[in-house]
Amino acid sequence: MQAPFDTLSAFRDILGQAPATDADAQRAAHDRNGQLTKPPGALGRLEDLAIWYAGWRGTAQPQITAPQVVIFAGNHGVCAQGVSAFPPEVTVQMVANFEQGGAAINQLCKAFGARMDVLALALDTPTADFTQSPAMTEQEVITALQTGWNAVDPQADLLVTGEMGIGNTTSAAAVAAAVLGGDAAAWTGRGTGVDDAGMARKIEAVARGLALHAPTDPLEALRCLGGRELAAMAGAIAAARHYRIPVILDGFICCAAAAVLEIAHAGALDHAVAGHLSAEGAHQRMLDALGKVPLLDLGLRLGEGSGAALAIGVLKGAVACHSGMATFAEAGVSDG
Amino acid sequence: MQAPFDTLSAFRDILGQAPATDADAQRAAHDRNGQLTKPPGALGRLEDLAIWYAGWRGTAQPQITAPQVVIFAGNHGVCAQGVSAFPPEVTVQMVANFEQGGAAINQLCKAFGARMDVLALALDTPTADFTQSPAMTEQEVITALQTGWNAVDPQADLLVTGEMGIGNTTSAAAVAAAVLGGDAAAWTGRGTGVDDAGMARKIEAVARGLALHAPTDPLEALRCLGGRELAAMAGAIAAARHYRIPVILDGFICCAAAAVLEIAHAGALDHAVAGHLSAEGAHQRMLDALGKVPLLDLGLRLGEGSGAALAIGVLKGAVACHSGMATFAEAGVSDG
Repeated sequence: MQAPFDTLSAFRDILGQAPATDADAQRAAHDRNGQLTKPPGALGRLEDLAIWYAGWRGTAQPQITAPQVVIFAGNHGVCAQGVSAFPPEVTVQMVANFEQGGAAINQLCKAFGARMDVLALALDTPTADFTQSPAMTEQEVITALQTGWNAVDPQADLLVTGEMGIGNTTSAAAVAAAVLGGDAAAWTGRGTGVDDAGMARKIEAVARGLALHAPTDPLEALRCLGGRELAAMAGAIAAARHYRIPVILDGFICCAAAAVLEIAHAGALDHAVAGHLSAEGAHQRMLDALGKVPLLDLGLRLGEGSGAALAIGVLKGAVACHSGMATFAEAGVSDG
Repeated sequence: MQAPFDTLSAFRDILGQAPATDADAQRAAHDRNGQLTKPPGALGRLEDLAIWYAGWRGTAQPQITAPQVVIFAGNHGVCAQGVSAFPPEVTVQMVANFEQGGAAINQLCKAFGARMDVLALALDTPTADFTQSPAMTEQEVITALQTGWNAVDPQADLLVTGEMGIGNTTSAAAVAAAVLGGDAAAWTGRGTGVDDAGMARKIEAVARGLALHAPTDPLEALRCLGGRELAAMAGAIAAARHYRIPVILDGFICCAAAAVLEIAHAGALDHAVAGHLSAEGAHQRMLDALGKVPLLDLGLRLGEGSGAALAIGVLKGAVACHSGMATFAEAGVSDG
């Protein structure tokens, strides 16, 4: 589907017009949950998840049959500041690995029955080094937002956005600091595993970017400090809301992109849950700022949408229990 | 397969003769993990899980294709003490629900591709009320251990043991206190949702059982305070070790049964991981005592093997990544 915006201002308007959950379906799901053959509350968070999912899908007894994982890849001019443990050519090499089925996310998509799409965003033209100038022009960030929007299958019933981009934890840290507040050090982590000297360069780069651009508007922060894959994730998450497709957020970079939406329009992430707590240092702080409690906490810090893809299993389990279980009346079981 | 024991002493000997992990396969899996296309350690606990699983299966590149979930059901004489929020007839009603596919565990087994077996253990003949006499005779506990052992498919490549039995958190609390130490109150929780008065009766029943039998031997604790489904779970977990089938432990009751094995023979649970942290109060204490860190923490307290079944997804994801990913060399990706 063609993205219904071609300016940042029009994109902002779309966030403001986003649909709400279906309160009737949510209430009906809540009622159904109370009749299922289990002690009240015994499925814990699975019950809340299923009711939340039912509301967004507009039906009390939903199914998950078409999850979509979209991976966006971008390159970053800020790599010139020596911020990553891996060279920038790894981005394009990993895109080839995704396309050949050799990455972690390929295996997880197979394991949980998800469709996987990979979009490489102008890898030959890295964003500008944000310590020197804005990372993207207005047209570049709009094109990336549109690419993300257009990548979402309106028939999907669950969305995970993942990313690949050497240097993008640096970009995500700068965006997070700009939209959520706090200094460079508070948001900067080890990424793929940078050493102490690299970590110092990374904090310095983020601090210089923040000082140079000082963006007060979240979409402007995305343009000046972000990357194409971050903008594309934001566009895809906004499209999912438009289609009422629930989203599982991945780790630090995905959540930085998502935070842009939430700060641009409060409630823009109500259709999203946090898939996992990443081992990237500042992810807990990010989730706290977004008011999200992660489903999994297994020390992952890979990106690619991997933590969120693993959480597809949890959400599938929750919805399968909710929609497939017998009620006390149907099963002839005595109700407490 | 016919259980190779017909006395408690012979069962204890089998625990002592249990096979170890395959150190060569584990080492080969560790080496493979270091070559996969991801930053070192970026899959967090999934990496440890895959290497652990590979060791027990004896191959560096294993698959999970035949998980088995076995649900054991038993009835408890201690229900006469008013310890549960549900009447004892719910046990047989829920067995019918399992057989008709209407319970939570049915949906989770379908979602994660697991075979599910249900064994009802002499439901018409509850164990004796352990506040009055030993719950089981020696022959009864041996029969239950054998039933559990015989229920395990030697061709399975992953085992979950679940249970159903109104009153069995009371039994599990008494077994836990007897084998792990601590008083009745420390191990007693709300189970299916007992009120304050029921909770007081439950603690009192556990305390009286402990005072009456004062068992010092773990298998004797299982006999005097346990139930048929607890003994069957212990037998099944021991059989899995015999066949080198990794086990995902479920919640409080499953872990109480498992604790009997660990105290009878240190290391008897090395082939097992904790699937989840249950909301049943004393489960964290139990996992601490067993030295196990749960994979999931989602507030479940249902039993039936449900938390462990949900964790099948995590283990499948871990093994899929480990065995399916390309190495840096295979994918032509630059290695840091």
